[in-house]
Amino acid sequence: MKVTVLIRPKQGILDPQGEAVEGSLRKLGFDVHGVRVGRVVDFELADDTDARARVERMCAELLANPLIESFEIELHDA
Amino acid sequence: MKVTVLIRPKQGILDPQGEAVEGSLRKLGFDVHGVRVGRVVDFELADDTDARARVERMCAELLANPLIESFEIELHDA
Repeated sequence: MKVTVLIRPKQGILDPQGEAVEGSLRKLGFDVHGVRVGRVVDFELADDTDARARVERMCAELLANPLIESFEIELHDA
Repeated sequence: MKVTVLIRPKQGILDPQGEAVEGSLRKLGFDVHGVRVGRVVDFELADDTDARARVERMCAELLANPLIESFEIELHDA
């Protein structure tokens, strides 16, 4: 099963990378605001059993820092 | 308009971060393979006119490295 996990800084958490990107985009003339930078992790899960629960454990144990990041799990069948 | 851009290493391009994450997940007992790590960038675009074309320019000029990364643009109305 193909899995995509989106990991984003939580609301209210400072995001220096997002601020840097916003500054650069504005200097290039793009009128943007609220830029936030997170990570996208794609992988194949060998076994489909309890896929969502297992990916949640992966997020909690390694992929995300639950104190400052939220995550969103997408399971793609086939 | 809210915009989400997903930036991923292109197929065939080495992804050391993905390899490191895969190694760590396997050590934790998760049977995963093909781990790839990219970025997700969320922002607000002040003006909706030609939104997709402008976000494509942002990707080409700053957000992604088109030589080694592909990008996917999601425009969210309202």
